[in-house]
Amino acid sequence: MKRSDRLVSLSHYFLENPKQHTSLPFFSERYQAAKSSISEDLVIVDRVLREEGIGYLQTSAGAAGGVKYIPYLSEKNSTAFIHELCKTLEDPERILPGGYLYMSDILGNPKMVKLIGRVLASAFSDLDIDVVVTVATKGIPLAYSVASVLNVPVVIVRRDPKVTEGSSVSINYVSGSSRKIQTMVLPKRSLQENANVCIIDDFMKAGGTINGMTSLLNEFDANVKAIGVLAEADDEEDERVVEEYTSLVKITNVDIKRKNIEVIPGKLHG
Amino acid sequence: MKRSDRLVSLSHYFLENPKQHTSLPFFSERYQAAKSSISEDLVIVDRVLREEGIGYLQTSAGAAGGVKYIPYLSEKNSTAFIHELCKTLEDPERILPGGYLYMSDILGNPKMVKLIGRVLASAFSDLDIDVVVTVATKGIPLAYSVASVLNVPVVIVRRDPKVTEGSSVSINYVSGSSRKIQTMVLPKRSLQENANVCIIDDFMKAGGTINGMTSLLNEFDANVKAIGVLAEADDEEDERVVEEYTSLVKITNVDIKRKNIEVIPGKLHG
Repeated sequence: MKRSDRLVSLSHYFLENPKQHTSLPFFSERYQAAKSSISEDLVIVDRVLREEGIGYLQTSAGAAGGVKYIPYLSEKNSTAFIHELCKTLEDPERILPGGYLYMSDILGNPKMVKLIGRVLASAFSDLDIDVVVTVATKGIPLAYSVASVLNVPVVIVRRDPKVTEGSSVSINYVSGSSRKIQTMVLPKRSLQENANVCIIDDFMKAGGTINGMTSLLNEFDANVKAIGVLAEADDEEDERVVEEYTSLVKITNVDIKRKNIEVIPGKLHG
Repeated sequence: MKRSDRLVSLSHYFLENPKQHTSLPFFSERYQAAKSSISEDLVIVDRVLREEGIGYLQTSAGAAGGVKYIPYLSEKNSTAFIHELCKTLEDPERILPGGYLYMSDILGNPKMVKLIGRVLASAFSDLDIDVVVTVATKGIPLAYSVASVLNVPVVIVRRDPKVTEGSSVSINYVSGSSRKIQTMVLPKRSLQENANVCIIDDFMKAGGTINGMTSLLNEFDANVKAIGVLAEADDEEDERVVEEYTSLVKITNVDIKRKNIEVIPGKLHG
Protein backbone atom coordinates (compact mmCIF):
# COMPACT_ATOMS: atom_id res chain seq x y z
CA MET A 1 0.00 0.00 0.00
CA LYS A 2 1.27 3.48 -0.85
CA ARG A 3 2.02 6.05 1.84
CA SER A 4 -0.96 8.21 0.89
CA ASP A 5 -3.35 5.28 1.30
CA ARG A 6 -1.66 4.16 4.50
CA LEU A 7 -2.11 7.62 6.02
CA VAL A 8 -5.87 7.52 5.43
CA SER A 9 -6.13 3.99 6.78
CA LEU A 10 -3.93 4.73 9.81
CA SER A 11 -5.90 7.87 10.67
CA HIS A 12 -9.08 5.85 10.61
CA TYR A 13 -7.52 3.08 12.70
CA PHE A 14 -6.37 5.42 15.45
CA LEU A 15 -9.58 7.41 15.64
CA GLU A 16 -11.55 4.16 15.94
CA ASN A 17 -9.23 2.69 18.57
CA PRO A 18 -8.36 5.37 21.11
CA LYS A 19 -6.10 4.38 23.99
CA GLN A 20 -5.41 0.98 22.47
CA HIS A 21 -1.83 -0.23 22.32
CA THR A 22 -0.83 -1.55 18.88
CA SER A 23 2.55 -2.96 17.94
CA LEU A 24 4.47 -1.71 14.92
CA PRO A 25 4.73 -5.20 13.37
CA PHE A 26 0.92 -5.29 13.25
CA PHE A 27 0.94 -2.29 10.92
CA SER A 28 3.95 -3.59 8.93
CA GLU A 29 2.05 -6.75 8.17
CA ARG A 30 -1.28 -5.08 7.59
CA TYR A 31 0.16 -2.65 5.03
CA GLN A 32 3.02 -4.83 3.75
CA ALA A 33 5.44 -2.02 4.48
CA ALA A 34 8.82 -1.72 6.22
CA LYS A 35 8.81 -0.72 9.89
CA SER A 36 10.81 2.38 9.00
CA SER A 37 8.08 3.50 6.59
CA ILE A 38 5.41 2.94 9.23
CA SER A 39 7.47 4.97 11.71
CA GLU A 40 7.56 7.84 9.24
CA ASP A 41 3.79 7.57 8.76
CA LEU A 42 3.28 7.77 12.50
CA VAL A 43 5.34 10.97 12.70
CA ILE A 44 3.03 12.57 10.15
CA VAL A 45 -0.17 11.40 11.87
CA ASP A 46 1.12 12.56 15.26
CA ARG A 47 2.07 15.99 13.89
CA VAL A 48 -1.35 16.63 12.36
CA LEU A 49 -3.25 15.42 15.45
CA ARG A 50 -1.20 17.79 17.63
CA GLU A 51 -1.58 20.72 15.23
CA GLU A 52 -5.35 20.29 15.21
CA GLY A 53 -5.43 20.05 19.01
CA ILE A 54 -7.28 16.74 19.12
CA GLY A 55 -4.66 14.41 20.58
CA TYR A 56 -1.33 12.73 19.93
CA LEU A 57 0.35 9.38 19.40
CA GLN A 58 2.19 7.90 22.36
CA THR A 59 4.98 5.57 21.25
CA SER A 60 6.84 3.11 23.42
CA ALA A 61 10.11 1.47 22.43
CA GLY A 62 11.47 -2.04 23.11
CA ALA A 63 10.18 -5.56 22.56
CA ALA A 64 6.66 -4.71 23.74
CA GLY A 65 6.86 -1.40 21.93
CA GLY A 66 4.10 0.11 19.91
CA VAL A 67 1.85 3.08 19.59
CA LYS A 68 -1.32 4.38 21.19
CA TYR A 69 -3.60 7.24 20.16
CA ILE A 70 -4.39 9.51 23.11
CA PRO A 71 -7.37 11.73 22.30
CA TYR A 72 -6.82 15.03 24.02
CA LEU A 73 -8.72 18.20 23.32
CA SER A 74 -6.33 21.15 23.58
CA GLU A 75 -7.18 23.79 26.18
CA LYS A 76 -7.80 26.25 23.36
CA ASN A 77 -10.35 23.92 21.74
CA SER A 78 -12.08 23.02 24.97
CA THR A 79 -12.26 26.60 26.25
CA ALA A 80 -13.78 27.72 22.96
CA PHE A 81 -16.33 24.91 23.13
CA ILE A 82 -17.30 25.70 26.73
CA HIS A 83 -17.86 29.38 25.94
CA GLU A 84 -20.04 28.42 23.00
CA LEU A 85 -22.00 26.10 25.31
CA CYS A 86 -22.55 28.87 27.88
CA LYS A 87 -23.99 31.13 25.20
CA THR A 88 -26.33 28.39 23.95
CA LEU A 89 -27.58 27.66 27.47
CA GLU A 90 -28.28 31.31 28.30
CA ASP A 91 -31.29 31.35 25.96
CA PRO A 92 -34.22 32.43 28.23
CA GLU A 93 -36.54 30.07 26.31
CA ARG A 94 -34.79 27.27 28.19
CA ILE A 95 -36.19 28.28 31.59
CA LEU A 96 -38.76 25.73 32.75
CA PRO A 97 -41.19 25.93 35.68
CA GLY A 98 -39.31 25.38 38.93
CA GLY A 99 -36.18 27.08 37.66
CA TYR A 100 -35.00 24.04 35.69
CA LEU A 101 -33.22 24.43 32.40
CA TYR A 102 -34.19 22.64 29.19
CA MET A 103 -31.07 20.84 27.96
CA SER A 104 -32.58 17.83 26.15
CA ASP A 105 -31.78 19.26 22.74
CA ILE A 106 -28.09 19.49 23.63
CA LEU A 107 -28.07 16.05 25.25
CA GLY A 108 -29.94 14.73 22.20
CA ASN A 109 -27.35 16.01 19.72
CA PRO A 110 -24.74 13.27 19.14
CA LYS A 111 -22.12 15.79 17.98
CA MET A 112 -22.48 17.92 21.11
CA VAL A 113 -22.47 14.83 23.29
CA LYS A 114 -19.27 13.66 21.60
CA LEU A 115 -17.57 16.98 22.25
CA ILE A 116 -18.70 17.18 25.88
CA GLY A 117 -17.40 13.64 26.38
CA ARG A 118 -14.10 14.54 24.82
CA VAL A 119 -13.61 17.56 27.08
CA LEU A 120 -14.37 15.49 30.20
CA ALA A 121 -12.28 12.52 29.05
CA SER A 122 -9.34 14.83 28.37
CA ALA A 123 -9.51 16.02 31.97
CA PHE A 124 -9.44 12.41 33.23
CA SER A 125 -6.93 11.12 30.70
CA ASP A 126 -4.16 10.30 33.22
CA LEU A 127 -6.33 8.72 35.92
CA ASP A 128 -6.20 5.09 34.81
CA ILE A 129 -9.99 4.74 34.76
CA ASP A 130 -11.36 1.17 34.41
CA VAL A 131 -15.04 1.95 34.02
CA VAL A 132 -17.44 4.88 33.65
CA VAL A 133 -20.52 4.81 35.88
CA THR A 134 -23.67 6.88 35.42
CA VAL A 135 -27.27 6.78 36.61
CA ALA A 136 -30.24 6.39 34.28
CA THR A 137 -31.36 8.30 32.21
CA LYS A 138 -29.92 11.62 31.13
CA GLY A 139 -26.28 10.97 31.93
CA ILE A 140 -26.14 7.85 29.75
CA PRO A 141 -25.11 9.43 26.42
CA LEU A 142 -22.41 11.51 28.12
CA ALA A 143 -21.10 8.44 29.94
CA TYR A 144 -20.75 6.54 26.65
CA SER A 145 -19.05 9.48 25.05
CA VAL A 146 -16.45 9.68 27.83
CA ALA A 147 -16.01 5.90 27.92
CA SER A 148 -15.52 5.64 24.21
CA VAL A 149 -12.59 8.09 24.41
CA LEU A 150 -11.11 6.34 27.45
CA ASN A 151 -11.69 2.92 25.83
CA VAL A 152 -13.46 1.48 28.90
CA PRO A 153 -16.95 0.04 29.52
CA VAL A 154 -20.00 1.84 30.93
CA VAL A 155 -22.06 0.64 33.87
CA ILE A 156 -25.52 2.11 34.43
CA VAL A 157 -26.99 2.48 37.90
CA ARG A 158 -30.77 2.19 37.83
CA ARG A 159 -33.50 3.48 40.09
CA ASP A 160 -35.55 0.31 39.57
CA PRO A 161 -34.19 -3.24 39.35
CA LYS A 162 -34.70 -5.10 36.06
CA VAL A 163 -35.37 -8.81 35.74
CA THR A 164 -32.99 -8.97 32.78
CA GLU A 165 -29.91 -8.25 34.83
CA GLY A 166 -29.79 -10.95 37.50
CA SER A 167 -29.11 -10.38 41.19
CA SER A 168 -28.17 -6.88 42.29
CA VAL A 169 -26.98 -4.68 45.13
CA SER A 170 -29.18 -1.75 46.14
CA ILE A 171 -28.96 1.18 48.52
CA ASN A 172 -31.33 3.84 49.76
CA TYR A 173 -30.22 7.43 49.99
CA VAL A 174 -31.65 10.87 50.65
CA SER A 175 -31.90 13.11 47.62
CA GLY A 176 -30.07 16.37 48.22
CA SER A 177 -32.64 18.76 46.83
CA SER A 178 -35.97 17.02 47.41
CA ARG A 179 -34.99 15.35 50.71
CA LYS A 180 -36.82 12.24 49.58
CA ILE A 181 -35.61 8.69 50.14
CA GLN A 182 -34.59 7.12 46.84
CA THR A 183 -33.20 3.78 45.72
CA MET A 184 -30.29 2.88 43.46
CA VAL A 185 -29.50 -0.54 42.07
CA LEU A 186 -26.48 -2.07 40.37
CA PRO A 187 -26.42 -5.65 39.06
CA LYS A 188 -23.83 -7.75 40.87
CA ARG A 189 -22.03 -8.89 37.78
CA SER A 190 -21.79 -5.45 36.22
CA LEU A 191 -18.74 -4.28 38.17
CA GLN A 192 -15.57 -6.00 39.36
CA GLU A 193 -14.17 -5.26 42.81
CA ASN A 194 -11.57 -2.51 43.27
CA ALA A 195 -12.29 -0.91 39.92
CA ASN A 196 -11.12 2.64 39.25
CA VAL A 197 -14.33 4.46 38.50
CA CYS A 198 -15.26 7.75 36.88
CA ILE A 199 -18.79 9.00 37.63
CA ILE A 200 -20.50 11.00 34.90
CA ASP A 201 -23.83 12.84 35.05
CA ASP A 202 -25.57 15.62 33.19
CA PHE A 203 -26.51 17.90 36.05
CA MET A 204 -25.62 18.44 39.70
CA LYS A 205 -27.62 20.46 42.20
CA ALA A 206 -26.81 19.60 45.82
CA GLY A 207 -25.09 16.40 44.68
CA GLY A 208 -27.34 13.85 46.40
CA THR A 209 -27.51 11.60 43.35
CA ILE A 210 -23.76 11.50 42.95
CA ASN A 211 -23.36 10.94 46.67
CA GLY A 212 -25.78 8.02 46.40
CA MET A 213 -23.76 6.55 43.55
CA THR A 214 -20.59 6.85 45.60
CA SER A 215 -22.21 4.92 48.47
CA LEU A 216 -23.41 2.23 46.10
CA LEU A 217 -19.96 1.99 44.53
CA ASN A 218 -18.47 1.53 48.02
CA GLU A 219 -20.40 -1.75 48.17
CA PHE A 220 -18.29 -2.89 45.21
CA ASP A 221 -15.04 -1.58 46.80
CA ALA A 222 -14.66 0.74 43.84
CA ASN A 223 -12.27 3.69 43.86
CA VAL A 224 -14.06 6.82 42.68
CA LYS A 225 -11.21 8.53 40.84
CA ALA A 226 -13.19 11.31 39.19
CA ILE A 227 -16.63 12.89 39.02
CA GLY A 228 -17.61 14.85 35.93
CA VAL A 229 -20.83 16.69 35.16
CA LEU A 230 -21.96 18.79 32.24
CA ALA A 231 -23.63 21.49 34.36
CA GLU A 232 -23.82 22.44 38.02
CA ALA A 233 -26.31 24.78 39.64
CA ASP A 234 -24.80 27.22 42.10
CA ASP A 235 -27.97 27.94 44.08
CA GLU A 236 -27.40 25.04 46.41
CA GLU A 237 -23.67 25.34 46.66
CA ASP A 238 -23.80 25.78 50.44
CA GLU A 239 -25.60 22.48 50.87
CA ARG A 240 -23.42 20.59 48.43
CA VAL A 241 -22.50 17.12 49.62
CA VAL A 242 -19.92 16.43 46.91
CA GLU A 243 -16.69 18.38 46.92
CA GLU A 244 -14.28 16.93 44.39
CA TYR A 245 -15.77 17.14 40.91
CA THR A 246 -15.37 18.70 37.50
CA SER A 247 -18.09 20.65 35.70
CA LEU A 248 -18.10 22.18 32.24
CA VAL A 249 -20.55 24.96 33.02
CA LYS A 250 -22.18 26.56 36.04
CA ILE A 251 -25.73 27.89 35.98
CA THR A 252 -26.16 30.99 38.12
CA ASN A 253 -28.80 33.62 38.71
CA VAL A 254 -31.83 31.89 37.22
CA ASP A 255 -34.41 34.68 37.35
CA ILE A 256 -37.72 33.15 36.32
CA LYS A 257 -39.65 36.42 36.60
CA ARG A 258 -37.32 38.42 34.37
CA LYS A 259 -36.60 35.41 32.17
CA ASN A 260 -32.89 35.69 32.65
CA ILE A 261 -30.15 33.10 33.23
CA GLU A 262 -26.43 33.38 33.51
CA VAL A 263 -24.22 30.48 32.53
CA ILE A 264 -20.48 30.65 33.18
CA PRO A 265 -17.61 28.21 32.69
CA GLY A 266 -17.57 25.59 35.44
CA LYS A 267 -14.76 24.13 37.52
CA LEU A 268 -12.79 22.81 34.56
CA HIS A 269 -11.75 26.18 33.18
CA GLY A 270 -13.47 28.40 35.75
CA MET B 1 -0.14 22.05 3.99
CA LYS B 2 1.42 19.06 2.29
CA ARG B 3 -0.66 16.26 0.78
CA SER B 4 0.40 13.77 3.46
CA ASP B 5 -0.76 16.11 6.23
CA ARG B 6 -3.94 16.97 4.36
CA LEU B 7 -4.85 13.29 4.04
CA VAL B 8 -4.64 12.78 7.81
CA SER B 9 -6.63 15.94 8.49
CA LEU B 10 -9.26 15.12 5.83
CA SER B 11 -9.69 11.57 7.13
CA HIS B 12 -10.30 12.97 10.59
CA TYR B 13 -12.72 15.59 9.26
CA PHE B 14 -14.87 13.07 7.40
CA LEU B 15 -14.99 10.52 10.21
CA GLU B 16 -16.07 13.26 12.63
CA ASN B 17 -18.68 14.68 10.28
CA PRO B 18 -20.60 11.83 8.67
CA LYS B 19 -23.39 12.72 6.25
CA GLN B 20 -22.46 16.38 6.33
CA HIS B 21 -22.22 18.24 3.03
CA THR B 22 -19.00 20.27 2.71
CA SER B 23 -18.03 22.42 -0.27
CA LEU B 24 -14.66 22.06 -1.97
CA PRO B 25 -13.76 25.75 -1.47
CA PHE B 26 -14.01 25.15 2.29
CA PHE B 27 -11.18 22.65 2.06
CA SER B 28 -9.20 24.78 -0.42
CA GLU B 29 -9.20 27.62 2.04
CA ARG B 30 -8.63 25.49 5.11
CA TYR B 31 -5.56 23.83 3.62
CA GLN B 32 -4.45 26.68 1.33
CA ALA B 33 -4.42 24.26 -1.58
CA ALA B 34 -5.76 24.29 -5.15
CA LYS B 35 -9.16 22.74 -5.78
CA SER B 36 -7.52 20.24 -8.12
CA SER B 37 -5.21 19.06 -5.33
CA ILE B 38 -8.15 18.68 -2.96
CA SER B 39 -10.01 16.67 -5.60
CA GLU B 40 -7.05 14.32 -5.88
CA ASP B 41 -6.97 13.97 -2.07
CA LEU B 42 -10.65 13.07 -2.08
CA VAL B 43 -10.07 10.32 -4.64
CA ILE B 44 -7.48 8.75 -2.32
CA VAL B 45 -9.68 9.01 0.78
CA ASP B 46 -12.66 7.56 -1.09
CA ARG B 47 -10.61 4.64 -2.41
CA VAL B 48 -9.30 3.65 1.03
CA LEU B 49 -12.72 3.96 2.68
CA ARG B 50 -14.22 1.68 0.03
CA GLU B 51 -11.38 -0.83 0.21
CA GLU B 52 -11.79 -1.11 3.97
CA GLY B 53 -15.54 -1.53 3.63
CA ILE B 54 -16.44 1.34 5.96
CA GLY B 55 -18.06 3.82 3.61
CA TYR B 56 -17.43 6.16 0.71
CA LEU B 57 -17.37 9.82 -0.33
CA GLN B 58 -20.37 11.11 -2.25
CA THR B 59 -19.47 14.03 -4.47
CA SER B 60 -21.89 16.40 -6.15
CA ALA B 61 -20.94 18.76 -8.97
CA GLY B 62 -22.12 22.28 -9.82
CA ALA B 63 -22.35 25.56 -7.93
CA ALA B 64 -23.63 23.92 -4.74
CA GLY B 65 -21.24 21.02 -5.24
CA GLY B 66 -19.24 19.40 -2.55
CA VAL B 67 -18.59 16.16 -0.79
CA LYS B 68 -20.20 14.06 1.92
CA TYR B 69 -18.88 11.04 3.80
CA ILE B 70 -21.42 8.20 3.83
CA PRO B 71 -20.48 5.64 6.48
CA TYR B 72 -21.50 2.25 5.19
CA LEU B 73 -20.40 -1.06 6.61
CA SER B 74 -19.88 -3.52 3.76
CA GLU B 75 -22.01 -6.67 3.83
CA LYS B 76 -18.86 -8.70 4.39
CA ASN B 77 -17.93 -6.64 7.46
CA SER B 78 -21.44 -6.61 8.90
CA THR B 79 -22.03 -10.34 8.33
CA ALA B 80 -18.74 -11.16 10.04
CA PHE B 81 -19.68 -8.94 12.97
CA ILE B 82 -23.15 -10.48 13.35
CA HIS B 83 -21.74 -14.01 13.37
CA GLU B 84 -19.24 -13.00 16.04
CA LEU B 85 -22.11 -11.51 18.05
CA CYS B 86 -24.17 -14.72 17.81
CA LYS B 87 -21.26 -16.75 19.18
CA THR B 88 -20.78 -14.30 22.08
CA LEU B 89 -24.48 -14.41 22.97
CA GLU B 90 -24.68 -18.21 22.95
CA ASP B 91 -22.67 -18.41 26.19
CA PRO B 92 -24.97 -20.37 28.59
CA GLU B 93 -23.76 -18.20 31.50
CA ARG B 94 -25.95 -15.49 30.01
CA ILE B 95 -29.22 -17.26 30.80
CA LEU B 96 -31.08 -15.46 33.57
CA PRO B 97 -34.13 -16.58 35.56
CA GLY B 98 -37.23 -16.26 33.39
CA GLY B 99 -35.38 -17.11 30.21
CA TYR B 100 -33.90 -13.61 29.80
CA LEU B 101 -30.44 -13.13 28.42
CA TYR B 102 -27.72 -11.04 30.08
CA MET B 103 -26.56 -8.52 27.48
CA SER B 104 -25.50 -5.59 29.68
CA ASP B 105 -21.80 -6.25 29.08
CA ILE B 106 -22.29 -5.95 25.32
CA LEU B 107 -24.50 -2.88 25.66
CA GLY B 108 -21.93 -1.45 28.09
CA ASN B 109 -19.04 -1.80 25.66
CA PRO B 110 -18.72 1.43 23.64
CA LYS B 111 -16.87 -0.33 20.81
CA MET B 112 -19.58 -2.98 20.42
CA VAL B 113 -22.28 -0.34 20.64
CA LYS B 114 -20.54 1.67 17.93
CA LEU B 115 -20.41 -1.35 15.62
CA ILE B 116 -24.02 -2.35 16.24
CA GLY B 117 -25.04 1.23 15.51
CA ARG B 118 -23.05 1.23 12.32
CA VAL B 119 -24.66 -1.98 11.06
CA LEU B 120 -28.16 -0.62 11.76
CA ALA B 121 -27.37 2.83 10.34
CA SER B 122 -26.01 1.25 7.17
CA ALA B 123 -29.34 -0.54 6.69
CA PHE B 124 -31.22 2.78 7.06
CA SER B 125 -28.75 4.89 5.13
CA ASP B 126 -31.12 5.79 2.24
CA LEU B 127 -34.25 6.47 4.28
CA ASP B 128 -33.82 10.19 4.88
CA ILE B 129 -34.20 9.85 8.65
CA ASP B 130 -34.65 13.11 10.63
CA VAL B 131 -34.47 11.73 14.15
CA VAL B 132 -33.78 8.51 16.06
CA VAL B 133 -36.27 7.64 18.81
CA THR B 134 -35.75 5.13 21.60
CA VAL B 135 -37.27 4.36 24.98
CA ALA B 136 -35.33 4.56 28.25
CA THR B 137 -33.06 2.86 29.29
CA LYS B 138 -31.26 0.08 27.47
CA GLY B 139 -31.81 1.26 23.92
CA ILE B 140 -30.24 4.67 24.57
CA PRO B 141 -26.59 3.89 23.73
CA LEU B 142 -27.62 2.09 20.52
CA ALA B 143 -29.84 4.99 19.52
CA TYR B 144 -26.94 7.45 19.91
CA SER B 145 -24.67 5.18 17.96
CA VAL B 146 -27.11 5.00 15.04
CA ALA B 147 -27.86 8.73 15.24
CA SER B 148 -24.23 9.68 15.25
CA VAL B 149 -23.69 7.82 11.95
CA LEU B 150 -26.85 9.29 10.41
CA ASN B 151 -25.95 12.76 11.74
CA VAL B 152 -29.38 13.32 13.33
CA PRO B 153 -30.59 13.98 16.91
CA VAL B 154 -31.92 11.43 19.41
CA VAL B 155 -35.22 11.72 21.26
CA ILE B 156 -35.82 9.57 24.32
CA VAL B 157 -39.29 8.37 25.27
CA ARG B 158 -39.63 7.95 29.02
CA ARG B 159 -41.87 5.84 31.19
CA ASP B 160 -42.15 8.61 33.79
CA PRO B 161 -42.46 12.34 33.07
CA LYS B 162 -39.63 14.59 34.29
CA VAL B 163 -40.08 18.11 35.59
CA THR B 164 -36.99 19.21 33.68
CA GLU B 165 -38.56 18.74 30.28
CA GLY B 166 -41.63 20.94 30.27
CA SER B 167 -45.07 19.89 29.03
CA SER B 168 -45.41 16.50 27.41
CA VAL B 169 -47.69 14.12 25.53
CA SER B 170 -48.32 10.72 27.07
CA ILE B 171 -50.10 7.52 26.06
CA ASN B 172 -51.06 4.30 27.80
CA TYR B 173 -50.50 0.99 26.08
CA VAL B 174 -50.67 -2.72 26.83
CA SER B 175 -47.31 -4.43 27.09
CA GLY B 176 -47.14 -7.36 24.66
CA SER B 177 -45.57 -9.90 26.97
CA SER B 178 -46.79 -8.95 30.45
CA ARG B 179 -50.23 -7.69 29.33
CA LYS B 180 -49.87 -4.80 31.79
CA ILE B 181 -50.95 -1.24 31.11
CA GLN B 182 -47.92 1.00 30.81
CA THR B 183 -47.30 4.68 30.14
CA MET B 184 -44.98 6.46 27.74
CA VAL B 185 -44.17 10.15 27.69
CA LEU B 186 -42.51 12.46 25.21
CA PRO B 187 -41.88 16.16 25.91
CA LYS B 188 -43.79 18.39 23.49
CA ARG B 189 -40.82 20.33 22.31
CA SER B 190 -38.62 17.31 21.70
CA LEU B 191 -40.02 16.41 18.28
CA GLN B 192 -41.22 18.46 15.32
CA GLU B 193 -44.32 17.43 13.39
CA ASN B 194 -44.01 15.17 10.34
CA ALA B 195 -40.50 14.04 11.19
CA ASN B 196 -39.08 10.92 9.55
CA VAL B 197 -38.32 8.68 12.48
CA CYS B 198 -36.21 5.60 13.05
CA ILE B 199 -37.04 3.61 16.21
CA ILE B 200 -34.15 1.82 17.90
CA ASP B 201 -34.28 -0.60 20.83
CA ASP B 202 -32.11 -3.32 22.30
CA PHE B 203 -34.59 -6.17 22.49
CA MET B 204 -37.98 -7.13 21.07
CA LYS B 205 -40.24 -9.87 22.35
CA ALA B 206 -43.87 -9.48 21.25
CA GLY B 207 -43.18 -5.88 20.25
CA GLY B 208 -45.54 -4.12 22.66
CA THR B 209 -43.00 -1.47 23.59
CA ILE B 210 -42.25 -0.60 20.00
CA ASN B 211 -45.95 -0.60 19.22
CA GLY B 212 -46.46 1.82 22.10
CA MET B 213 -43.75 4.08 20.73
CA THR B 214 -45.41 4.05 17.32
CA SER B 215 -48.73 5.14 18.86
CA LEU B 216 -47.03 7.92 20.78
CA LEU B 217 -45.21 9.05 17.63
CA ASN B 218 -48.56 9.19 15.82
CA GLU B 219 -49.50 11.99 18.20
CA PHE B 220 -46.62 13.98 16.72
CA ASP B 221 -47.63 13.04 13.13
CA ALA B 222 -44.28 11.36 12.75
CA ASN B 223 -43.51 8.92 9.91
CA VAL B 224 -41.94 5.76 11.29
CA LYS B 225 -39.57 4.94 8.45
CA ALA B 226 -37.62 2.16 10.14
CA ILE B 227 -37.47 0.02 13.27
CA GLY B 228 -34.19 -1.55 14.30
CA VAL B 229 -33.40 -3.80 17.25
CA LEU B 230 -30.25 -5.57 18.37
CA ALA B 231 -31.99 -8.83 19.28
CA GLU B 232 -35.40 -10.39 18.86
CA ALA B 233 -36.80 -13.39 20.70
CA ASP B 234 -38.60 -15.89 18.51
CA ASP B 235 -40.72 -17.49 21.24
CA GLU B 236 -43.49 -14.96 20.84
CA GLU B 237 -43.31 -14.60 17.11
CA ASP B 238 -46.95 -15.69 16.70
CA GLU B 239 -48.13 -12.90 18.94
CA ARG B 240 -45.90 -10.26 17.42
CA VAL B 241 -47.62 -6.92 16.99
CA VAL B 242 -44.85 -5.32 14.91
CA GLU B 243 -44.19 -6.61 11.42
CA GLU B 244 -41.74 -4.35 9.63
CA TYR B 245 -38.45 -4.26 11.50
CA THR B 246 -34.79 -5.13 11.28
CA SER B 247 -32.93 -7.23 13.83
CA LEU B 248 -29.26 -8.13 14.03
CA VAL B 249 -29.74 -11.41 15.87
CA LYS B 250 -32.56 -13.75 16.80
CA ILE B 251 -32.58 -15.69 20.07
CA THR B 252 -34.14 -19.12 19.70
CA ASN B 253 -34.48 -22.25 21.78
CA VAL B 254 -33.61 -20.90 25.21
CA ASP B 255 -33.50 -24.09 27.27
CA ILE B 256 -33.08 -23.05 30.90
CA LYS B 257 -32.94 -26.64 32.20
CA ARG B 258 -30.17 -27.77 29.88
CA LYS B 259 -28.49 -24.36 29.94
CA ASN B 260 -28.58 -24.01 26.21
CA ILE B 261 -29.34 -21.10 23.89
CA GLU B 262 -29.22 -20.74 20.16
CA VAL B 263 -28.58 -17.35 18.61
CA ILE B 264 -28.83 -16.94 14.83
CA PRO B 265 -28.54 -13.95 12.48
CA GLY B 266 -31.72 -11.86 12.53
CA LYS B 267 -33.76 -10.27 9.78
CA LEU B 268 -30.92 -8.13 8.45
CA HIS B 269 -28.85 -10.97 7.05
CA GLY B 270 -31.14 -13.86 8.01
